[in-house]
Amino acid sequence: MTFEEVRKLAADRLGDKCKACPVCNGRACRDVLPGPGAKGDIAVRNYEAWQNIRVNMDTICESGDPDLSCTLFGRKLAAPILAGPVGAVKLHYGELLDDAGYNDLLVRGCREAGICAMTGDGTNPAVMEAAAAGIRAAEGAGIPTVKPWDAVTLQEKFRLVEESGAFAAAMDIDAAGLPFLKGLNPPAGSKTVAELSEIVKLANRPLILKGIMTVKGALKAKEAGAAGIVVSNHGGRVLAGCPSTAEVLPEIVAALKGSGMTILVDGGLRNGNDIFKALALGADGVILARPYVTAVYGGGTEGVIALTKKLMSELEDTMRMCGAHTIAEITRDMVR
Amino acid sequence: MTFEEVRKLAADRLGDKCKACPVCNGRACRDVLPGPGAKGDIAVRNYEAWQNIRVNMDTICESGDPDLSCTLFGRKLAAPILAGPVGAVKLHYGELLDDAGYNDLLVRGCREAGICAMTGDGTNPAVMEAAAAGIRAAEGAGIPTVKPWDAVTLQEKFRLVEESGAFAAAMDIDAAGLPFLKGLNPPAGSKTVAELSEIVKLANRPLILKGIMTVKGALKAKEAGAAGIVVSNHGGRVLAGCPSTAEVLPEIVAALKGSGMTILVDGGLRNGNDIFKALALGADGVILARPYVTAVYGGGTEGVIALTKKLMSELEDTMRMCGAHTIAEITRDMVR
Amino acid sequence: MTFEEVRKLAADRLGDKCKACPVCNGRACRDVLPGPGAKGDIAVRNYEAWQNIRVNMDTICESGDPDLSCTLFGRKLAAPILAGPVGAVKLHYGELLDDAGYNDLLVRGCREAGICAMTGDGTNPAVMEAAAAGIRAAEGAGIPTVKPWDAVTLQEKFRLVEESGAFAAAMDIDAAGLPFLKGLNPPAGSKTVAELSEIVKLANRPLILKGIMTVKGALKAKEAGAAGIVVSNHGGRVLAGCPSTAEVLPEIVAALKGSGMTILVDGGLRNGNDIFKALALGADGVILARPYVTAVYGGGTEGVIALTKKLMSELEDTMRMCGAHTIAEITRDMVR
Amino acid sequence: MTFEEVRKLAADRLGDKCKACPVCNGRACRDVLPGPGAKGDIAVRNYEAWQNIRVNMDTICESGDPDLSCTLFGRKLAAPILAGPVGAVKLHYGELLDDAGYNDLLVRGCREAGICAMTGDGTNPAVMEAAAAGIRAAEGAGIPTVKPWDAVTLQEKFRLVEESGAFAAAMDIDAAGLPFLKGLNPPAGSKTVAELSEIVKLANRPLILKGIMTVKGALKAKEAGAAGIVVSNHGGRVLAGCPSTAEVLPEIVAALKGSGMTILVDGGLRNGNDIFKALALGADGVILARPYVTAVYGGGTEGVIALTKKLMSELEDTMRMCGAHTIAEITRDMVR
Repeated sequence: MTFEEVRKLAADRLGDKCKACPVCNGRACRDVLPGPGAKGDIAVRNYEAWQNIRVNMDTICESGDPDLSCTLFGRKLAAPILAGPVGAVKLHYGELLDDAGYNDLLVRGCREAGICAMTGDGTNPAVMEAAAAGIRAAEGAGIPTVKPWDAVTLQEKFRLVEESGAFAAAMDIDAAGLPFLKGLNPPAGSKTVAELSEIVKLANRPLILKGIMTVKGALKAKEAGAAGIVVSNHGGRVLAGCPSTAEVLPEIVAALKGSGMTILVDGGLRNGNDIFKALALGADGVILARPYVTAVYGGGTEGVIALTKKLMSELEDTMRMCGAHTIAEITRDMVR
Repeated sequence: MTFEEVRKLAADRLGDKCKACPVCNGRACRDVLPGPGAKGDIAVRNYEAWQNIRVNMDTICESGDPDLSCTLFGRKLAAPILAGPVGAVKLHYGELLDDAGYNDLLVRGCREAGICAMTGDGTNPAVMEAAAAGIRAAEGAGIPTVKPWDAVTLQEKFRLVEESGAFAAAMDIDAAGLPFLKGLNPPAGSKTVAELSEIVKLANRPLILKGIMTVKGALKAKEAGAAGIVVSNHGGRVLAGCPSTAEVLPEIVAALKGSGMTILVDGGLRNGNDIFKALALGADGVILARPYVTAVYGGGTEGVIALTKKLMSELEDTMRMCGAHTIAEITRDMVR
Repeated sequence: MTFEEVRKLAADRLGDKCKACPVCNGRACRDVLPGPGAKGDIAVRNYEAWQNIRVNMDTICESGDPDLSCTLFGRKLAAPILAGPVGAVKLHYGELLDDAGYNDLLVRGCREAGICAMTGDGTNPAVMEAAAAGIRAAEGAGIPTVKPWDAVTLQEKFRLVEESGAFAAAMDIDAAGLPFLKGLNPPAGSKTVAELSEIVKLANRPLILKGIMTVKGALKAKEAGAAGIVVSNHGGRVLAGCPSTAEVLPEIVAALKGSGMTILVDGGLRNGNDIFKALALGADGVILARPYVTAVYGGGTEGVIALTKKLMSELEDTMRMCGAHTIAEITRDMVR
Repeated sequence: MTFEEVRKLAADRLGDKCKACPVCNGRACRDVLPGPGAKGDIAVRNYEAWQNIRVNMDTICESGDPDLSCTLFGRKLAAPILAGPVGAVKLHYGELLDDAGYNDLLVRGCREAGICAMTGDGTNPAVMEAAAAGIRAAEGAGIPTVKPWDAVTLQEKFRLVEESGAFAAAMDIDAAGLPFLKGLNPPAGSKTVAELSEIVKLANRPLILKGIMTVKGALKAKEAGAAGIVVSNHGGRVLAGCPSTAEVLPEIVAALKGSGMTILVDGGLRNGNDIFKALALGADGVILARPYVTAVYGGGTEGVIALTKKLMSELEDTMRMCGAHTIAEITRDMVR
């Protein structure tokens, strides 16, 4: 089963918003998927920013098969690729799956593929409960993402994280801008450095802050004791007018140099060539969300494996052609 | 009544020039609305310039609802938003309203929404008389705009301003380029700094010079004693080939730094996200004209209120997501 | 008779190559009009380069009607506008006129409009003979353009110039690249500085070298004793891949500063707003060719007058709105 | 027979992938011709990069017909133009020809035209055998291209090169990225500087390394003792996301200055104007592949001659109009 086959199956199974386009560039779904930022150009901008970065081919080097493996937050992965958290799949992607079913397939598929899934959260507590159970069933091979709720709710959420045995946890601190969280219960909102420091303790494992788009924010995440950040604008769905993630990644990398923090990036990455560019710009790993939705809807765990294989094959090709034999050998001078 | 509902009603009620487009970007009306500049790319350029400025999301901060209120020219407003002056509405926007009727609805709607309207002027003295009466009825909650007439006419115009009790007055000094003023009576034209100094005295309240597009012009406005300026190219309708207002705003802000002058900007601002960008670039307030035409034609005072609420909600969202709790906290580093 | 009326008449009378488009931007005729450069993007690029230059509106100044008059090569003109030389009109623009008829109408129309026409040259000696006769009939109010023929032919051509009483003469030194001159008789070709010095003497009046696109070329024109140059890529018809004239004009202006040479520019200038930009960038005058073809075909001498009036009115509007009361007051800081 | 006639014939004879477009810019065949890079924007980017470079016309110079001849790798050529190596023509361009037939026509046509062809290589040994025989029949007037096979295979390949009497040989060191070579037998792959040094010796004639896109790679080619390089991204067919060749050419030229190495470039060059730009940027010669496919399919040896004449004529025109009388006189200041 190739990913192209998976994609065609997904096109039949997805709802009326995502079209599983051959080129997933945010154009067909512009103003269709909900969110203030999604009514705009950010998804398109995310995608195009990677196209504007070019790879420096150089094949005068040792021959041999590249090694794509890496360690993120203490866990060995087959490649520095994570499947991103997705919520409200029934609303956004069609009736075939609910959040629990989606997360279950995603977590299992990623584990089989040797990488790792991030799961989402929601106002309905059952979503996080099922995600935590799924990660526990996968022996901790998943990263649950907790929304920036009020302190009381967070206690309960991180209890679930603890039970899941997850090797790391994430908080999408930009989620306060999600329209479906606005004015709902439990309340979500911004967090100060002091509040985040408490959450880091509560997490009891590496905490990843997702939704960092500025050097200032990255330094606050560091001050709060986060183990890592995700340079992310939430796919353009929480705030209109954001820059692309590829635009801001290099300056954030420079600001965190030597800090020991892990830097992930998402937004518009669609293939292994894009992933290579993100790694060359200084990311330690990447997150892809929309392609994994297509993978799960189109092929379940097999779809996830097919997509991951495709991404790894493309990343391997690019590494080979640019003279990088390991992930660590992918350096800044390999892109322009 | 949402602004989207208002917009759809307006699409039926407007004449054959403005289409109340979902995205009001100057494309559908290019070369349609009269004016030498409107035969060209300025309206499009105004709109696109705001899209090229991006907001720096950062949600690591205190939570809490932003305060959008501000004081402009001594008057407290719910948000730094003014509805722009529009003239000859019957000609440009359709039979439903004449200038007097339009201004009446606009002034009242803005006052109810907690912001403030600017009214227009025309060769027909009745336009300004009705506008002044409307502002007087609204207890001075409006800014009459006077065209750069000859000295005799200005005496009469500012008598009307005085009677209106307006808290500030404006002059669109670029109006000499309007085709319908060319060679008509009373004559309009450029003003020297000395002449403007006299007009400032005549105004007897804060005078705002509208139509400043250069540092040189801004410094002359300051020398003349103006209380504020509007960085404006008259929506591209007075002179072809102007830059966008967003392009020139930063250098004018820099030149007036510390002068105490109030800097407003108009041109292509369409939502609260755009407004945030203008404020971050150093504007003290913004003016929107075309969207308020849609609001008035589509929903009268209710339309004005719906649009204002939408703009304030979008501005509030952006402030929240960029860590600004008050208008004063919106700073230059929040955009790129 | 407005120019818009003239243009519509021209659309009926022109042949099948030029469409007298409402916006004459080189798109509809791309690869249609003959010439190696015309098979390409230069005409489009010429046009668009002027759009990318923006005018700095500033109406805080003395009021009053601008004076557009100027002196070029010792002759007083109503405005710094010349109609460009055009050849082979029957081939390019349709059967209605031949070169002699075209030049006759153009020279007379320009003279009536207070400006001045340049006439073209061709392999057929009758073209230049008729042009010279036409200029003589107009009491020298025209600039004959001589192609860079061999020395023997030039003797004959400049004898005609002498008889015409023209106040200046031009040579399009780039014409060697014209396909219809390739390998024909008399032969045309490049000229050295030494050869041009001889031609300057032969001309016995101010000689203008047309087709300068580099600082190097401009300095050689100066060394040869030319009275002026035309920054021109021959409308893109002599060589593919040239830059636009607006791109190279500023550096050539800088290189000739203080030399006393007159700098003209052509290429894609379509209205008075464009003309203002060229003058602000340092040109002493401009040449428009294609619009005058439309003018002559559509309205004869009346068409030429209508176009010139339109251009002057647009230039006057722009001067008024940028605070320039005379041509000399149009300065570099008035564009960006 | 003009090249335009050849092109129209080719349009009928080519398969369903290449359309022999009037403007061969990589758009119609995007994602159609096989290869990871061909699924992308590189071919388009290659083409457009040449359009963004502009030629500096200057006709104030000595007249006279330019001399296009040059010497590359010790061989006198009528112009610094090579026809590029193409493989698997039946698969890519249609049933009319196989690789042997194609190479035969190309080598003979180029020799008649006074230039030189490069031949391709493949997993099928017969391709290279036929190419070598063809070059031998042409008295060495061809450059066989060997893929970066394993050492054993290379011995056999260079034996064929030796027999061919070719004046130079090439290796496309980027070919490891070609999908049809992946995991096949004989194996192909990257080469170290040490390995390339051995291959240089094995070649026993000037060796050209094709597929250099970085300064780093160019310096390694020099260290290995290569006689020349081809700045090439393999037409975008070996790796997605590469920059255009025109983008990287100037920095590679600068890095090899004074080294005595010959620098060739390919990718998107379509006419003599483009070729002039490449030479002005510092290339010693250029390679065109796709246009020669059209030439061979459309007109066999006559097609090759027609294309070469057209290219030379365009190059000559550009040289004439920029003041270059020989290839050596084409200097960096002639483009911008």
